[in-house]
Amino acid sequence: MSTHSSVQPRTLCANLPDYAEQPVMLEGWVHSIRRLGGLAFLNVRDRSGIAQCVLEGELANAALAPESVVAVSGVAVLAPKAPGGAELRAASVDCLSAAAPLPFELNKKTIPARLDTMLDHRALSLRHPQTHATFTVQSALAGAFREFMSGRGFTQIFTPKLVAAGTEGGSNLFPVDYFGRRAYLAQSPQFYKQMMVGAGYERVFEIAPVYRAEEHDTSRHLNEYVSLDVEMGFIRSEEELMELEEELLRHMFGEVARTCGPELALLGVELPMPRDIPRIPVAEAQRILQQRYGKTSPKGDLDPEGERLLCRYVSELNKPAFVFVTRYPRDIRPMYAMPAPEDGTLTASFDLLFNGLEITTGGLRIHDYGQLADSIRERGLDPGSFAGYLDLFRYGMPPHGGFAIGLERLTSRLLGQANVREASAFPRDRSRLTP
Amino acid sequence: MSTHSSVQPRTLCANLPDYAEQPVMLEGWVHSIRRLGGLAFLNVRDRSGIAQCVLEGELANAALAPESVVAVSGVAVLAPKAPGGAELRAASVDCLSAAAPLPFELNKKTIPARLDTMLDHRALSLRHPQTHATFTVQSALAGAFREFMSGRGFTQIFTPKLVAAGTEGGSNLFPVDYFGRRAYLAQSPQFYKQMMVGAGYERVFEIAPVYRAEEHDTSRHLNEYVSLDVEMGFIRSEEELMELEEELLRHMFGEVARTCGPELALLGVELPMPRDIPRIPVAEAQRILQQRYGKTSPKGDLDPEGERLLCRYVSELNKPAFVFVTRYPRDIRPMYAMPAPEDGTLTASFDLLFNGLEITTGGLRIHDYGQLADSIRERGLDPGSFAGYLDLFRYGMPPHGGFAIGLERLTSRLLGQANVREASAFPRDRSRLTP
Repeated sequence: MSTHSSVQPRTLCANLPDYAEQPVMLEGWVHSIRRLGGLAFLNVRDRSGIAQCVLEGELANAALAPESVVAVSGVAVLAPKAPGGAELRAASVDCLSAAAPLPFELNKKTIPARLDTMLDHRALSLRHPQTHATFTVQSALAGAFREFMSGRGFTQIFTPKLVAAGTEGGSNLFPVDYFGRRAYLAQSPQFYKQMMVGAGYERVFEIAPVYRAEEHDTSRHLNEYVSLDVEMGFIRSEEELMELEEELLRHMFGEVARTCGPELALLGVELPMPRDIPRIPVAEAQRILQQRYGKTSPKGDLDPEGERLLCRYVSELNKPAFVFVTRYPRDIRPMYAMPAPEDGTLTASFDLLFNGLEITTGGLRIHDYGQLADSIRERGLDPGSFAGYLDLFRYGMPPHGGFAIGLERLTSRLLGQANVREASAFPRDRSRLTP
Repeated sequence: MSTHSSVQPRTLCANLPDYAEQPVMLEGWVHSIRRLGGLAFLNVRDRSGIAQCVLEGELANAALAPESVVAVSGVAVLAPKAPGGAELRAASVDCLSAAAPLPFELNKKTIPARLDTMLDHRALSLRHPQTHATFTVQSALAGAFREFMSGRGFTQIFTPKLVAAGTEGGSNLFPVDYFGRRAYLAQSPQFYKQMMVGAGYERVFEIAPVYRAEEHDTSRHLNEYVSLDVEMGFIRSEEELMELEEELLRHMFGEVARTCGPELALLGVELPMPRDIPRIPVAEAQRILQQRYGKTSPKGDLDPEGERLLCRYVSELNKPAFVFVTRYPRDIRPMYAMPAPEDGTLTASFDLLFNGLEITTGGLRIHDYGQLADSIRERGLDPGSFAGYLDLFRYGMPPHGGFAIGLERLTSRLLGQANVREASAFPRDRSRLTP
């Protein structure tokens, strides 16, 4: 093994075929090593993929533990049988960082460990190509979200996550000791995004963490997650929001298809293309579930089984498994939800279900000061405790509405993962605060 | 005043000249109204700018309080003397949301109020065109950051802000009650971005809030701010990071120049173009300050006055006021800072000063497990309390480094604002937790 560092520029594994017969240097992790006769076949993994290095003579005996970081110099050679069609004939191998024995193997088709163990060693389990692909896709989704919103004239906003009060009146909040005062972690940027619409930006979006101190410990819940928030002014109907979200999702999925081909192939995922997503009032959805599946729903809402069955219903109509559920009753929506024009006991709001799970809540908001103050009081809350928010509605507030998409839920539904934790790099739940 | 809602599609103020002699409908806020003879000149403000509407006859007597939200329908007419070269001859004006008397006027050149009052009514003060421009520029900066990093093969990551321990060993942390356990708000994504490099993404960036429970109440400090974080593997020198940041800033400023022309003109800002930013070891910087300005610095560091003077020094060399300060001593840098190759008491780290203020800290990180554990112990800290982070270094960690830019500081320095709070939509400081 050579001891001097190479001064050659680095070549990425995926680009090896472009350097046939030229000297190159690869750097990455030891994915696997296989010895055959006097040769060793070393698979090096970097952010672009995996390349095969052929080690001969003394080099073939190098002790290289899996996941060690190495720099391999040599000559690139076209080799039809090698992965990617080229391999590296190694002249030297430098070990930059030797790895200790691993808690689980990373070079098998799947990681032979339970989700909890994988999450305990998250930075390691993320090296497995399949796990790894999740967050490449997630990055593409977030980028495409920003790009689409920006192209539609939306301004990216950054609003505080340290707040004096909750948006829903006080439940499910994490308390923070803020210089001896009581503060909370924001459950959503709801009030702030509305304020930025009213501040004249009209169209705003935010990509930021939100916090829910829910006691639930299910495969659908995270206590900290990334919310893709949208809010826009000068709209008259929630139909405009559903239209916008449908176009947004098509753009996001299109970008994932364009930029994450290898990841999708590795995960065996075929991307759906949402188009003409059905919009079903919740009362009608309940009737469908009752008639078709004998499913009884809670008053004015769907439960998780109902959400799964409604997506199944849509799939059985040969459509991608997206469905907007509309017209939720006022008493299960927040105080800022705009009543439906034809029936004041319902709201001009919606949820979007995707592959059996709610990934979005949205709707029109009340923009009249008096109506909003009344709505707060009707819920037994004190308008005074919402002063900083409510105040704005006295100074000219346009009709407006918006929605929010849970990034981890969207990712996990898209990739067909059983547990939303798989779509969070470092999930936070009832019992998990590390790593 | 007409009482029926218009069904026409909305035209933005800035597009009025494109609709000469056509019927159009504008929607926005009443920026100002001026009566002259039997006419009223109503300036309507929307997200695109301001347009003049001419009201005649009965319409001219309409009581329209400043900042009310209106829809004005009529015919667009080219009018060389009107702002933008066109005006609207109004046929009807609908008031969508009437405004109460304002706490301060919004249609003067500047807002006649103190910063504190403006922050108390933030959603209102943000409507003033000059204040408004700040966050349009900030959105462009954030977008350009994402675009540049993504183009260089960096993956966007989302890491937890709820953490079990601090990155620096426990000071300046906000405690959170996490289901009865003690958690903290992350001071930076430092450990997590390093972990994502080690997880095989190699090149990562994050745009997210960070929290500093600093008691400081100065014009330079926020207790919650947005950090633009970058971390990359397989680099050998911090010079590569400074090179990258310089290119990044050029791209970001170039995008602001391209997309925020009207905002920059309004604010009278001329964008600097950083190129060949000087890189000065802190010891040399101290000598320069002593020789040139008789300024004495604290041991191994610059104080705020020193930062201002060093930028002045660079300006006096006829360069834009950027300077990298390098080679900080180990005892004032964090435990993960890589020692300088030529002198183990110094570090391979840097700060970037811009217009008198530090906007970035960065550097190479220690990637050897033993060296990192020793460095933690040397500071009297317990490696055991960093287990989740330290563990990764046992399983193959490439040489790496990174930096972080404070988005509000960058914005406020770029726009020449006296107080960093002006570059935060809803600042959080020692005494401010609302709105």
